[in-house]
Amino acid sequence: MTYVLHYAPDNASLIIRMALDHRGLPYRTQLVDRASQEQSSAAYRALNPNGLIPTLETPQGPLFETGAILLWLADTHGGLGPAPTDPARGTFLKWLFFAANTLHPCLRMLFYPEKYIDTPHQAALRKGLQTQLQQGFDTLDSFAAQSGDWLSGSQPGVLDFYAAALLRWPALYPTDADRSWFALANYPALQDLCARIETLPCTATLQKAEGLGDTPFTAPRRPTPPEGSAT
Amino acid sequence: MTYVLHYAPDNASLIIRMALDHRGLPYRTQLVDRASQEQSSAAYRALNPNGLIPTLETPQGPLFETGAILLWLADTHGGLGPAPTDPARGTFLKWLFFAANTLHPCLRMLFYPEKYIDTPHQAALRKGLQTQLQQGFDTLDSFAAQSGDWLSGSQPGVLDFYAAALLRWPALYPTDADRSWFALANYPALQDLCARIETLPCTATLQKAEGLGDTPFTAPRRPTPPEGSAT
Repeated sequence: MTYVLHYAPDNASLIIRMALDHRGLPYRTQLVDRASQEQSSAAYRALNPNGLIPTLETPQGPLFETGAILLWLADTHGGLGPAPTDPARGTFLKWLFFAANTLHPCLRMLFYPEKYIDTPHQAALRKGLQTQLQQGFDTLDSFAAQSGDWLSGSQPGVLDFYAAALLRWPALYPTDADRSWFALANYPALQDLCARIETLPCTATLQKAEGLGDTPFTAPRRPTPPEGSAT
Repeated sequence: MTYVLHYAPDNASLIIRMALDHRGLPYRTQLVDRASQEQSSAAYRALNPNGLIPTLETPQGPLFETGAILLWLADTHGGLGPAPTDPARGTFLKWLFFAANTLHPCLRMLFYPEKYIDTPHQAALRKGLQTQLQQGFDTLDSFAAQSGDWLSGSQPGVLDFYAAALLRWPALYPTDADRSWFALANYPALQDLCARIETLPCTATLQKAEGLGDTPFTAPRRPTPPEGSAT
């Protein structure tokens, strides 16, 4: 079966795209038009009741949650992270969930604070989230420094792609607020990781498909996608 | 090997305890003394750099992140959720990550807003989180209503235990703030699930070990643990 990836440029769907391309899996994309709030439409919510991007249509039905899709692809096809029987599995899972449970939610709140708090309090929330994210990136950087070249084990895998995206976005978003709290250079092991990820063919495919430029992780620039919009 | 579960009563460690007991796995517990902030000690952070509870010591090293530990136990021992080759795996993973990525972080922020925002803004943050949680529980309730008896598949498993804990805590915590926004009866399929979970032997073991009373999920009461404290 050809997977169908419901995506918007520079959204979390890019992480799934990288996994699919890295593993050479057949898929087609379906743009979710954020400009018209398509992610909140009844048709999209029938696939993903949370109205979030990405969704991946699979033989097991539509899957959502970035971490779940990544792990499902890894376990279904192999080659994207330690298998369930691999002694490195526990380490892989704890950092995958850390990315999904701490870093990713903090970024979501930083980018869309209006979902969580009224306008007069948003700057205060963003400040607190920035502190949490700095701690979280520090922690992930320490893990990266002890790892080999890749967070996912002996080969690049889904946790590496996830980390790269989480490190790209705070350099670019929110577009209308201060981003000086974040600097990739503060996390040297993660910066090196981003540079390695930029050498992978799946990054080149992503750059072209979503208009992310030639240094999407080490020196991100605003996307110029062929279709759709990031926000 | 005997697992070592670093726990505090009525903390997320209770979910791991239920999984271990349900599957009959050998473990011993090690209290993390929250009254003395032991979770922030250097010794504990050597096991879990985030200073959060639980941590499970395993042959693959100390594992953290509730969802990661649950999934690792399920995949290592079987009998706690759909195996990687099971056609129900995708559904299981997407809701497990939803619990870990949306419900659990929102509760953590509701209970410990001071980690995220200064005092004058905490009430506003809690209000927004409550709305997010109501939506999230509604979504999970819809899934529960379409499922069979258990969220984890044909048998009770880690996602059921996780859901039960996430539905217990908002009835009790934060102790010093309004909790009227939450009522289990608003989520009838989840309420039925909680009642079923209370018939399992692993719930009886938990009640005794952590002093949770005889209706820990359908009608939670403040814990009276034999050792340690919840907050």
